[in-house]
Amino acid sequence: MADMIVRFGIIGAAEIARKVSRAIALAPNATLSAIGSRSVEKASKFAVDNGFSPQVKIYGSYEAVLDDPEIDAVYVPLPTSLHLRWAVLAAEKKKHLLLEKPVALNVSEFDKILEACEANGVQFMDGTMWMHNPRTALMKEFLSDAEQFGQLKSVNSVFSFAADADFLANDIRVKSDLDGLGALGDAGWYCIRSILFAASFELPKRVIAFPNPVLNESGVILSCGASLFWDDGKIATFHCSFLSNLTMDITAIGTNGTLHVNDFIIPYGEKEAYFCTNSKSGFTELVTGWEPLPSKHIVPTDLPQEAHMVREFSHLVKEIKANGSKPEKKWPNISRKTQLVLDAVKASLDGGFKPVEVGP
Amino acid sequence: MADMIVRFGIIGAAEIARKVSRAIALAPNATLSAIGSRSVEKASKFAVDNGFSPQVKIYGSYEAVLDDPEIDAVYVPLPTSLHLRWAVLAAEKKKHLLLEKPVALNVSEFDKILEACEANGVQFMDGTMWMHNPRTALMKEFLSDAEQFGQLKSVNSVFSFAADADFLANDIRVKSDLDGLGALGDAGWYCIRSILFAASFELPKRVIAFPNPVLNESGVILSCGASLFWDDGKIATFHCSFLSNLTMDITAIGTNGTLHVNDFIIPYGEKEAYFCTNSKSGFTELVTGWEPLPSKHIVPTDLPQEAHMVREFSHLVKEIKANGSKPEKKWPNISRKTQLVLDAVKASLDGGFKPVEVGP
Repeated sequence: MADMIVRFGIIGAAEIARKVSRAIALAPNATLSAIGSRSVEKASKFAVDNGFSPQVKIYGSYEAVLDDPEIDAVYVPLPTSLHLRWAVLAAEKKKHLLLEKPVALNVSEFDKILEACEANGVQFMDGTMWMHNPRTALMKEFLSDAEQFGQLKSVNSVFSFAADADFLANDIRVKSDLDGLGALGDAGWYCIRSILFAASFELPKRVIAFPNPVLNESGVILSCGASLFWDDGKIATFHCSFLSNLTMDITAIGTNGTLHVNDFIIPYGEKEAYFCTNSKSGFTELVTGWEPLPSKHIVPTDLPQEAHMVREFSHLVKEIKANGSKPEKKWPNISRKTQLVLDAVKASLDGGFKPVEVGP
Repeated sequence: MADMIVRFGIIGAAEIARKVSRAIALAPNATLSAIGSRSVEKASKFAVDNGFSPQVKIYGSYEAVLDDPEIDAVYVPLPTSLHLRWAVLAAEKKKHLLLEKPVALNVSEFDKILEACEANGVQFMDGTMWMHNPRTALMKEFLSDAEQFGQLKSVNSVFSFAADADFLANDIRVKSDLDGLGALGDAGWYCIRSILFAASFELPKRVIAFPNPVLNESGVILSCGASLFWDDGKIATFHCSFLSNLTMDITAIGTNGTLHVNDFIIPYGEKEAYFCTNSKSGFTELVTGWEPLPSKHIVPTDLPQEAHMVREFSHLVKEIKANGSKPEKKWPNISRKTQLVLDAVKASLDGGFKPVEVGP
């Protein structure tokens, strides 16, 4: 079983599933076995449009994918409001679960998903691809370096993109019944994840939403932000928006070093990605320049980051299926912390921008 | 008088005066004529240490510089708590005034300085050097481009540096009787200025300080931050600190474009400076990269930015002295707006982190 290939089903012919189906094809330990949509026609069109091999089974329902005994794992790119139902059902059908973000509408929903995964011994991972880019591990190394970076003091994270009129009218991410968390659940998820990443996944004590969210006529968030506070004095801020030019920043500042990355979610290109650091920075004589100058770290990427994600997930599935390992807790724990902070920001937004404690 | 050389006196042998005395020497329309300190010995040592020409007059008091009829303008790098007294006196002695930042302890003090300048027909400018870097004009051009940048939506600004033990024990910027505004007055001044710069100097409506300032035992701010809000939905955040690695960021995001600069106060090097932009950014097919990629704009600098500042100031002084022009209002107006926002942040810090309206 050393060379076990994990057989994926996709439920939902979402735009993002195009990229992930390619990633499943690229990952050496995974293969796409089935696609299910609400009709055979939709599933079939998706398969044709994306050049799927004729071996990929076409199903006219999500259930059919979950009932297929030749599927090991499912990728679920459905709207957030459908996660609870389909993720729980997938786990109950013993399918390992790669679930798009945000993982749920709130942490109590997500806990039901995690309970189902635990009860059924399946691996959970969310679809936050940048976590798996080889660059991310090197950024982590820098942030963990007591000498070069020191103690984290502040983080600023931004994810914005300028949605067009069609998106703002029709995308599921602006529909209150589909993705009720809007820009916070979509773009804000990444910002919160990046802040937790920089903070070694230590939860902030409290959050305060900025008092100027932009909502659409259904009350869905199009733009918002918040500040996050830890008891040791660390602070983080983020801004997420569907209304500003594409920007993807992490700025993490420690006592000894600074990290800058401006394309953290989707690197500028697929073949390599970079980040910039400076450590123990000072000035030249007369304070007319910097010494040392910042460093640019270029990291080649053998596979696209989403294929790294599929490979890592499939590796964990193989360990469970072939070697009887327990599911890896790291990934669901990280998802849950992200959702906890997201919930606290939502509560602050809904409650007059007051400080909200981050729940347990 | 076309080639009038403005004769400068410096009052106060401050560290920063070393750089500015060099700038006065480099600016083609300025010359250093006198240095005054609290004793002849201190002034003399400063002149020797910095290789001043023997023509530079050495005075053992600030008054002596102000009383010298052969001085046109003074550069005042004294601690903030001394600005009101010496800036007003300099104006009354008809000396044009280049004053270090923060310009005063609060705007009511600063208004007295401005009244004295106005009553005596002298030019006022503060010592915010980066405003005069040729790069800054090109950044402004980008930010003003309705097509490439669009409407400003958010700004994040950071200025931090890791002060050593000696600084934290002895520097005037941590002494409540000398620079009572601490990191807010020193580093925060630059952040606020950069935010106003990005916002075309439109004042925010209100500010809210972050509830985690770090104060020293005398109550002087070592680290703080705030969020700033405009009625049109724009938001800005800043973080200033003596306790984090050297970082100098402006990130300004508009509807169509993004500006990144990571050395806005002191460029990495003296000969050139750069900033990065992206406009109307989107993704490649399958969302696996950016299109177009960001652009790096390299701007050569013929003179150090502080010499540009001295040159611009001296040009205005010449226009007044030689051509009977009125003092240029742009610079005192910008200083005053910066101080107004700084005062509002201080009021929010002192008043329990509540929203504070930015005063008129």
